[in-house]
Amino acid sequence: MLITPGKLLATINTPEDLRRLDKTKLPQVCDELRQFIIDNVSVYGGHFGASLGVVELTVALHYIFNTPDDQLIWDVGHQAYGHKILTGRRDKFHTNRFYGGLSGFPKRRESPYDAFGVGHSSTSISAALGMAVASQLQNQMHRHHIAVIGDGAMTAGEAFEGMNHAGATNSNLLIVLNDNCMSIDPNVGALKEYLTDITTSHTYNRVKDEVWNLLGKMSTFGKSAQEIVSKVEAGMKATLLKSSNLFESLNLRYFGPIDGHDIDHMTSVLEDLKNIPGPKLLHCVTVKGKGYGPAEKDQTKWHAPGLFDKVTGEIKKKVYETPQPPKYQDVFGHTLVELAQANERIVGVTPAMPSGSSMNLMMKAIPERAFDVGIAEQHAVTFSAGMATRGEVVFCNIYSTFMQRAYDQVIHDVCIQELPVVFCLDRAGFAGADGPTHHGAYDIAFMRCIPNMIVASPMNEKELRNMMFTAASDTIQSGKQAFTIRYPRGEGVMPNWRTPFEEIPVGKGRMVQDGEGVAILTFGPIGNYAVKASAMLEKEGLRPAHFDMRFAKPLDEVLLHTIFQRFDRVLTVEDGCLQGGFGSAVLEFMVDHGYAARVKRLGIPDAIVEHGEQIELHRECGFDPEGIAEAVRELMFAGSSVRI
Amino acid sequence: MLITPGKLLATINTPEDLRRLDKTKLPQVCDELRQFIIDNVSVYGGHFGASLGVVELTVALHYIFNTPDDQLIWDVGHQAYGHKILTGRRDKFHTNRFYGGLSGFPKRRESPYDAFGVGHSSTSISAALGMAVASQLQNQMHRHHIAVIGDGAMTAGEAFEGMNHAGATNSNLLIVLNDNCMSIDPNVGALKEYLTDITTSHTYNRVKDEVWNLLGKMSTFGKSAQEIVSKVEAGMKATLLKSSNLFESLNLRYFGPIDGHDIDHMTSVLEDLKNIPGPKLLHCVTVKGKGYGPAEKDQTKWHAPGLFDKVTGEIKKKVYETPQPPKYQDVFGHTLVELAQANERIVGVTPAMPSGSSMNLMMKAIPERAFDVGIAEQHAVTFSAGMATRGEVVFCNIYSTFMQRAYDQVIHDVCIQELPVVFCLDRAGFAGADGPTHHGAYDIAFMRCIPNMIVASPMNEKELRNMMFTAASDTIQSGKQAFTIRYPRGEGVMPNWRTPFEEIPVGKGRMVQDGEGVAILTFGPIGNYAVKASAMLEKEGLRPAHFDMRFAKPLDEVLLHTIFQRFDRVLTVEDGCLQGGFGSAVLEFMVDHGYAARVKRLGIPDAIVEHGEQIELHRECGFDPEGIAEAVRELMFAGSSVRI
Repeated sequence: MLITPGKLLATINTPEDLRRLDKTKLPQVCDELRQFIIDNVSVYGGHFGASLGVVELTVALHYIFNTPDDQLIWDVGHQAYGHKILTGRRDKFHTNRFYGGLSGFPKRRESPYDAFGVGHSSTSISAALGMAVASQLQNQMHRHHIAVIGDGAMTAGEAFEGMNHAGATNSNLLIVLNDNCMSIDPNVGALKEYLTDITTSHTYNRVKDEVWNLLGKMSTFGKSAQEIVSKVEAGMKATLLKSSNLFESLNLRYFGPIDGHDIDHMTSVLEDLKNIPGPKLLHCVTVKGKGYGPAEKDQTKWHAPGLFDKVTGEIKKKVYETPQPPKYQDVFGHTLVELAQANERIVGVTPAMPSGSSMNLMMKAIPERAFDVGIAEQHAVTFSAGMATRGEVVFCNIYSTFMQRAYDQVIHDVCIQELPVVFCLDRAGFAGADGPTHHGAYDIAFMRCIPNMIVASPMNEKELRNMMFTAASDTIQSGKQAFTIRYPRGEGVMPNWRTPFEEIPVGKGRMVQDGEGVAILTFGPIGNYAVKASAMLEKEGLRPAHFDMRFAKPLDEVLLHTIFQRFDRVLTVEDGCLQGGFGSAVLEFMVDHGYAARVKRLGIPDAIVEHGEQIELHRECGFDPEGIAEAVRELMFAGSSVRI
Repeated sequence: MLITPGKLLATINTPEDLRRLDKTKLPQVCDELRQFIIDNVSVYGGHFGASLGVVELTVALHYIFNTPDDQLIWDVGHQAYGHKILTGRRDKFHTNRFYGGLSGFPKRRESPYDAFGVGHSSTSISAALGMAVASQLQNQMHRHHIAVIGDGAMTAGEAFEGMNHAGATNSNLLIVLNDNCMSIDPNVGALKEYLTDITTSHTYNRVKDEVWNLLGKMSTFGKSAQEIVSKVEAGMKATLLKSSNLFESLNLRYFGPIDGHDIDHMTSVLEDLKNIPGPKLLHCVTVKGKGYGPAEKDQTKWHAPGLFDKVTGEIKKKVYETPQPPKYQDVFGHTLVELAQANERIVGVTPAMPSGSSMNLMMKAIPERAFDVGIAEQHAVTFSAGMATRGEVVFCNIYSTFMQRAYDQVIHDVCIQELPVVFCLDRAGFAGADGPTHHGAYDIAFMRCIPNMIVASPMNEKELRNMMFTAASDTIQSGKQAFTIRYPRGEGVMPNWRTPFEEIPVGKGRMVQDGEGVAILTFGPIGNYAVKASAMLEKEGLRPAHFDMRFAKPLDEVLLHTIFQRFDRVLTVEDGCLQGGFGSAVLEFMVDHGYAARVKRLGIPDAIVEHGEQIELHRECGFDPEGIAEAVRELMFAGSSVRI
């Protein structure tokens, strides 16, 4: 079912078409664009509230600026659906986030209008500044460079680093602060309070209103925006302290706050700002989910609601007749509460992912011991380390892909200091529809090379619970090692998952099935594919052995000696990169101990794997159940195992 | 030669001894402490200017706060010499930074007074906040938590993330902003300008002086500091905008600026601040190198000057009769200028390391194309990516250990986007005296697992020049891969290093010496140790082959096929972690292609290696020349090569 765009929207194939319209037509464009997003996402899924909130901003930016010559960067990119639809991708939009279809985020290879690929937050200011500086070097002073960044993304350190540099340049940079008080969950922290203060302060707004009025009046007399601004600034400085605003402290000219849903006002303001040189910030206040009632009311739920009935606002959930396995994140969330209720030293930390990680369960049950620190992975890890020095048992939950943001802190603040922080890496392996920016492909490799670090992954819910139990135990907490537990997005395999806790000896694997000819060594839930593969092979009369290694570090050396003594053909399977990953750890063991089996390693190849359902991507990379079975067959029937 | 402390300093074995002194004695303590630092560093070397700048602050903090019960964290830690001397380490201080001696940075295992281990910048606020929150949870509300952070470190994003969280808590946290306008090089960016504005603004200081006067007067009438502050704040808010200050915008109570060398004033202020609840910031203005004339005058040179004559201020340099090899960093710096003079698209980026990386050569020669972005590695990489999208040829120089701070940006902003940014990783391998926080141990493992990434290391100066030339060539710049070049701290091996440029085919190794029995595969300058080892072995009648692989990724597969066809015993050597490193890449090749040689891998083991001279650490890890020779002997005389 293809969605039919509104009449006016149907005529807009590029922003140039948009720019040919009379300004009075823009409200209609906004209405049709909003409706097109609602129509599409309700049927095909995807991110929702963020794009609805910036409909007017999107139209205004493309109307006023000369994209793609002017460089427009959407921070994070959740909110760029309108941008995609206006920039030649309207008729492909139903493929958004599907395997082989459009990416859910701006992506350079997809369109010249996507000036910078995004997915993770808070990169836009730095990237836009890089482009602006390049334009200066290349004498292309006509180019504008615009970073649209949310108030949530503004709390991450990189945004501050970018502003600190930008404020010391005379680059042609416009930062649009899209202030909706939300990350995926409600935004937290002192900056948010500050922005709310500005937005609601009568005094402040009165002054600012006067500025805008003055701008309006003076424009009528033909003065340039530049002259006007300097007059206004001079006037303000007489009565206010020089750096009266956080952004002005960083030498960014601050404008706003303005209503981000008033398309008319916004186009005027942006037109004026085009003529103001140097780095500047426009503060727009918007409502996430704007224009769709249920989404405005429950903004977290409607960040990415899945399919829904656009008329009733009812979110469609699959109904099952039998109990289904839970999501790994929920096993984490419930288990953490269970452990924390029994041990008052347990605390939880999440960088802006309460609902995504299910840390919200602990935030609700034991709020004083669960911390949402905002989009701030670096801080999350060092803050965890600080608590650990004081004897707290810290569960710091960060998506695998976002842990890349705190890598130094894991090494420098946790592992060098021998602190037993527990890292739970959700969304490890392929993230699915979010694509390459969000795949948790590298964590096994980048975590296992750090000393004082245990790297574990559970094959099922029970194992996850027991690994968490083990990580919080005295065995670990009185020791000197951090404990990483990685698990994927999505559901597990055990409908009855609330099993009693058992401590797992660190570095101890387990046999899933005994067999002959080939030993399959798996790490994490991907082991369940190996179980399926074994079932297929059974029918062919083949029965490989299968070991769930549980730990990529330390490896179960006792078990590995047994395996390499018995098997000369070994298959390793992991939902992680092949370079330096779990399979490589097995090779290191093998060669260090003088074994020489034929080993085939399955995992994520040395390439950027695009988006799609997890199983589609596993298949593409050859480690879906059929791929594993095929690899076993190949090994079984291989000739002499190795060349000496 | 042990340094004799001054009379009073000789009696201070712990901060308790200090706290028993009358306040009037503190200036003498400061003088003696400063002299002891000068005496020691002039003879034994180490960091200098930073510790001189905080002598008064150090004494004041330990005098007023109840360390170690109160938690004192020194950001970076360059400046903690006074702290070490006052906390029981005076008589060991001559061992500072020597193998087996005191660490040059605060370190938890060394002393209970070192509340948090440091080395990298900008972690102190997050760590102190973690401790403060733990104290709240543990009902230890008497504890104070103090983070001392420089204005340079304040520009890194993590500091901002920490403040954003702190400002939303009621934790008992004191941030002391040690404002000396310096990182190792002069500090840059908008924040620095802002702090200078505050410090020099008459209006601002008048208001602040009134506040302090008022505090003084009211104290005399026995009012609590808490009452006073709320009165003062109320008064100020009537005339000023609510958030009139960057830090107050983040809901941190701001005090200062005060003179960080006025010990008397500082102890009074800190005493008052002890009674003010909640998160707060004290802005101290200090002079780096204070009290030693030459160091005050040239602060970059005197950050860590090496040995010097304390009377004349003459820095002692070794004098050589013959030309010596240059430092790798200087080969980088001069070569970059040479390349950039021939190609106007070449730009350079450094995060606050102009002198450490020798990027200062380009900043001097072509200032408009060389960017010091401050302590902001994340921004440095994304900023580089932004410039690369616009066709600039970017050389982004970051120490290996600091690249850990920008890991996500390398993956997300550079490699996923297929941008040919050139990363030059200085201080790769063991950093030497700076110790584990600064060792560049992990980069081979964490870089080679990223798709679209080339990982190279030159064996000598000529190779470094040619790798840089290659990275800037059309071959690379018209492609889709980033190019990492890692090289160590210190000198190379070629006194005559200005060789003509030659492009190196990507992924092409070279034979250093042909031989029999064992093939030595080396990566980077550590290959020169293998040359020495070969010379030793030659005398014993052994002649292993030696290959300088040049690239850890992509590997030279043609060469490796030849090697594994000819040799059944292989030794890999790298100045990097064994888990997932260069040697593991060789194992992956070997097993993927069905070879089964006996392979021994030399490199950094899975442990935190402490500080010392590079050669001492290489020896400890068994890959100094003698260790390599011994490994070759073992392989030569090993029995049957592998167990099948």
